[in-house]
Amino acid sequence: MNMRIETAAMDTLCANALRFLAIDAVEQAKSGHPGMPMGMAEIAVALWTRHVRHDPADPAWADRDRFVLSNGHGSMLLYGLLHLTGYDLPLDELKRFRQLHSKTPGHPEHGLTPGVETTTGPLGQGFANAVGMALAEKLLAREFNRPGCDIVDHRTWVFLGDGCLMEGLSHEAASFAGVQRLSKLIALWDDNRISIDGNVAGWFADDTPARFMAYGWNVVEAVDGHDVAAVDRAIRKALANAEKDAGPTLICCRTTIGRGSPVRAGTADVHGAPLGEDEVAATREELGWPHDPFEVPEEVRAAMDARAAGAERRAAWHTIFEAYRTAWPEAAAEFERRTAGRLPVGFQVLAHAILRGVDKDAATVATRKASQHAIARLARALPELLGGSADLTHSNLTDWPGCGAVRADQPGRHINWGVREFGMAAALNGIALHGGFLPFGATFLVFSDYARNAIRMSALLGQRVVYVMTHDSIGLGEDGPTHQPVEHLPSLRLIPGLDVWRPCDAVEAQAAWNAAVQRRGPALLALSRQNLPHQPRTIDQLEDIARGGYVLAETAGARPALVLIATGSEIALAVEARGLLQADGIPVRVVSMPCTAAFDRQDAAWRAAVLPPGVPRVAVEAAQPDFWWKYLAGAPRAAVVGIDRFGESAPASDLAALFGFTAERVADTARRLL
Amino acid sequence: MNMRIETAAMDTLCANALRFLAIDAVEQAKSGHPGMPMGMAEIAVALWTRHVRHDPADPAWADRDRFVLSNGHGSMLLYGLLHLTGYDLPLDELKRFRQLHSKTPGHPEHGLTPGVETTTGPLGQGFANAVGMALAEKLLAREFNRPGCDIVDHRTWVFLGDGCLMEGLSHEAASFAGVQRLSKLIALWDDNRISIDGNVAGWFADDTPARFMAYGWNVVEAVDGHDVAAVDRAIRKALANAEKDAGPTLICCRTTIGRGSPVRAGTADVHGAPLGEDEVAATREELGWPHDPFEVPEEVRAAMDARAAGAERRAAWHTIFEAYRTAWPEAAAEFERRTAGRLPVGFQVLAHAILRGVDKDAATVATRKASQHAIARLARALPELLGGSADLTHSNLTDWPGCGAVRADQPGRHINWGVREFGMAAALNGIALHGGFLPFGATFLVFSDYARNAIRMSALLGQRVVYVMTHDSIGLGEDGPTHQPVEHLPSLRLIPGLDVWRPCDAVEAQAAWNAAVQRRGPALLALSRQNLPHQPRTIDQLEDIARGGYVLAETAGARPALVLIATGSEIALAVEARGLLQADGIPVRVVSMPCTAAFDRQDAAWRAAVLPPGVPRVAVEAAQPDFWWKYLAGAPRAAVVGIDRFGESAPASDLAALFGFTAERVADTARRLL
Repeated sequence: MNMRIETAAMDTLCANALRFLAIDAVEQAKSGHPGMPMGMAEIAVALWTRHVRHDPADPAWADRDRFVLSNGHGSMLLYGLLHLTGYDLPLDELKRFRQLHSKTPGHPEHGLTPGVETTTGPLGQGFANAVGMALAEKLLAREFNRPGCDIVDHRTWVFLGDGCLMEGLSHEAASFAGVQRLSKLIALWDDNRISIDGNVAGWFADDTPARFMAYGWNVVEAVDGHDVAAVDRAIRKALANAEKDAGPTLICCRTTIGRGSPVRAGTADVHGAPLGEDEVAATREELGWPHDPFEVPEEVRAAMDARAAGAERRAAWHTIFEAYRTAWPEAAAEFERRTAGRLPVGFQVLAHAILRGVDKDAATVATRKASQHAIARLARALPELLGGSADLTHSNLTDWPGCGAVRADQPGRHINWGVREFGMAAALNGIALHGGFLPFGATFLVFSDYARNAIRMSALLGQRVVYVMTHDSIGLGEDGPTHQPVEHLPSLRLIPGLDVWRPCDAVEAQAAWNAAVQRRGPALLALSRQNLPHQPRTIDQLEDIARGGYVLAETAGARPALVLIATGSEIALAVEARGLLQADGIPVRVVSMPCTAAFDRQDAAWRAAVLPPGVPRVAVEAAQPDFWWKYLAGAPRAAVVGIDRFGESAPASDLAALFGFTAERVADTARRLL
Repeated sequence: MNMRIETAAMDTLCANALRFLAIDAVEQAKSGHPGMPMGMAEIAVALWTRHVRHDPADPAWADRDRFVLSNGHGSMLLYGLLHLTGYDLPLDELKRFRQLHSKTPGHPEHGLTPGVETTTGPLGQGFANAVGMALAEKLLAREFNRPGCDIVDHRTWVFLGDGCLMEGLSHEAASFAGVQRLSKLIALWDDNRISIDGNVAGWFADDTPARFMAYGWNVVEAVDGHDVAAVDRAIRKALANAEKDAGPTLICCRTTIGRGSPVRAGTADVHGAPLGEDEVAATREELGWPHDPFEVPEEVRAAMDARAAGAERRAAWHTIFEAYRTAWPEAAAEFERRTAGRLPVGFQVLAHAILRGVDKDAATVATRKASQHAIARLARALPELLGGSADLTHSNLTDWPGCGAVRADQPGRHINWGVREFGMAAALNGIALHGGFLPFGATFLVFSDYARNAIRMSALLGQRVVYVMTHDSIGLGEDGPTHQPVEHLPSLRLIPGLDVWRPCDAVEAQAAWNAAVQRRGPALLALSRQNLPHQPRTIDQLEDIARGGYVLAETAGARPALVLIATGSEIALAVEARGLLQADGIPVRVVSMPCTAAFDRQDAAWRAAVLPPGVPRVAVEAAQPDFWWKYLAGAPRAAVVGIDRFGESAPASDLAALFGFTAERVADTARRLL
């Protein structure tokens, strides 16, 4: 009994320590979100002192539990936890909360702070990342564990708030986690009934437990989120469910936002602004916290320190792993390669060989089909390739012979994501962050809109995720303007760090895939529905594709009088227009520009060699034209053949004529510049 | 009994007529989606022959029921219904399904086909549009109905499939409809357990009825969707619920996709491809349909024809409306004005007067605050203004004195949408389509990503929806890269038909609002978190703001040696840089370009006068720079001061220095061009 009381007292101290680190940091920064850390402090203590299996000394340990703060505005709670449990995040960094180049930015940023598993803030996405992580764990365990040797066996924990639950993304992620029965995923809901606009009763009246049960989740209801022991019991229930493989668990914790603040607790005022000097003092009084700002009692430090236990746990895992290595040396090596994100030895040579083979085939196919062939080839060399589509598998062409469908009880390498574009993309980020897989996902290019912020997050996270986006222009024909991307290609190119590829034939499609899987960062492939003819290339030109922009057709000896720049399906058009112009004695160069971002990374000499100053240029792309002026500004005269309005429903050939995607129009546009 | 049998037989005939119109049209087009019309034919007959209150002769009748086909790929079902009930959609148009400039495009397009209430295809959005329509009906009824004179009293019907239900958007829309208790919204779910990838069991195992009950919906479960009488009974239950104002209703109809096709029924094969000649013949055999392609038996035409009943119903409504007009002439006139979408007489003069007043105030405020003042001013003149925010009311600044919060039981003009950006935007489209309101919605600019496809749909639909997007650059400071838009401004400008405004001060903010409310089409306002100084203007310059780009600062007499183009918060920077350059004797023009789309609509003379050829130009905008080359290509030398990477978490002033948004850097960039 005494011990229990002591434990309870210590829990309270720990929770208050987390509270005041958040209060003090927000106060010092004069901005930030104290309400959530103050409300979730006891939940954090229950989870992090009793259940999270991690080693602060090695944030990259492959079998660590993953923890995601989906309500990322409460970042100070996470920073407090990382600091107190022993990560390399000194108090000085907490004092520099939200300052330039500190390790404690306004929202948690993966890669910047040890122990931060993903970048959160855009609501709902952390939760969907966690679903991806839990799926990765399940698939990796299925693939690598051996009888008596579970080298993959960890849980994914996620904190989320009402905001995450209101987002549509939470539906996609939770529904998918349910059908895939991700039993080691445990979500803790900060049910404080307050969102930024106030008490949620007026805009959010869901019966959330019932909703999650409808997804096949276990739900632990009505937990007092300020009672560490109660939260602990709820987590134990969740873990028991996980043991029985009974589906993911949602723990519903009733809390008070800003708990401890005499005036602001339980109101939206405490969500996103400093308490202010007076209220901080009153909160210290209220909670009996005599300590100075940023002062943490030694007994709290001792109670929270996870380093010794973490080191022990990691050592135990290493013992198991070494036994595994002895018994299954190849699998162990492969596990280490995969979780480190290294490609197999010799992959680059293989990729080249594949590319040359595709060039020899000289096939005329749709680039979506070429992409499918590329996937099949790469999947043989890269067991980490994990594909899928948002319910358009046979349109996006993402499956391959023998891939197998990933199901709750069935191994495979192809995921039917359902009609959940955003959930898919955000989960792909989680899979990539987890490690062990090289994930790709697919939908129609126009529906990249649905997933857009998660694609942005792939780039911000710098994760290797490949997006297969097919039906990339009006060339899709009859489905009409709702399904015809117009602005998508140029607008995706504006996302920093995203490589957008639009291959013109099977060869460039393979080159795009080769580049995508070798890159540390996301790539998006925009692919045609319709067949595109093979373009002949020299060996040098084959190599040049990776540069993102290169001379595809040149008149021997003659300096070009005009440069035609094109991508994807418009390359064949440019080549045809070139024929018309050359028949008139006009020497024309065709530049293929499948990836402008890669082209921008080339040195100035390459770029000037491809796009010589002083020569008129015409860009041709069946998309919104404005983007191309970036590459036309250096020319004395220039024009774009593009589409500056929405598409229409009609057979593709009618649309090509309607929108002027004919060799004659391209040639005429060029002639007017000469 | 005999009558009942006859009715059942006629229902079957009608359903098969709809089936074969779809089959034949898809066959003729050699593309399209026969599966859904074949599966929902009986549901359509039950609804359209017994319940939809409409008049095919007047598709714009204000009090008609609204019908939305959220699973828009089944467009032929809708075209068949519109044709058979008597809309101006002749058989010849059905024969031209999916052909260029027909009235029967691949997905239903509002404005092109009489009776099509919204453009659908992007899954989930039709459903969310319908939620907006039902909300508009409820609010309009609340505002205009008088005792005994319900001039607004119609239902909103929506068909939706598994695809819509998997989309996260369905969560946002259904949750919002539940909390707002939109009892006249009745959704019919085509529960065929098939999506494009096959049987949904592997990726969609939600208990959908339980899920919708968790949202506060009434759910009518387990209805045989091929039994017209059963569907009719379910609809009657829903209507009884509507009478009791007991919340929206979901009717769950078990169906077989492609019903009638001997080989393909119940499989994904029938979803999106023609049956093929043999299977069409087999289906005719199976269903006992002896008629030629596109042949409809006269008794079916007679049974489906809704013109006489529609004319009667509309006449009855007009009688009520005339009584209303007699009793409440002003309200009647206002109702007619509002539902026609006309602004009040004299509004333009008023808007000018407001603008001049704002100019006289010469206030230095954040443009989000200036927008709030503009909203307050316009709201007095425009009772149709209906605002809201996705849970950021006090950050986006969308409320105004006396606006009142819209609640299930409470009138108001400001909507707390909750954290549902996509749902909000798609519902705004529905509100605008319904008529009677001029809706606007708000979130942070970076989260325009979440709503992006609905913003695109506003443009495709040409609806007057205003998006208030605040915190428009790194100027928001500490919240960091997840919250700092970088690529959003330029990427939104690429959406055809969307006017993106980025005002530089309170005057331009008012001008942007004035333009937005007067436009037939959507506008998006990108607004600053931070204060921006007032820029002095002549009367002529005040007028020029509406042109989207104009000369803000010019050196009297001197031809400019350089043009600085800027928007929003960078105007003050450009003006400051101009001061530095002019101190060096360099005459500099500053062009303010708050709306490039409006500028593009000006004649060539205006554009050349603002951006004179032959003068070097520098564009300055705290966003991804590529877009600006469109306006720089005409200059002999040019540069952009922009941001080509993600932001960081720090105080705004630190970020301005880090990213080089200083007058010195702008001036230096300019000097290098001279």
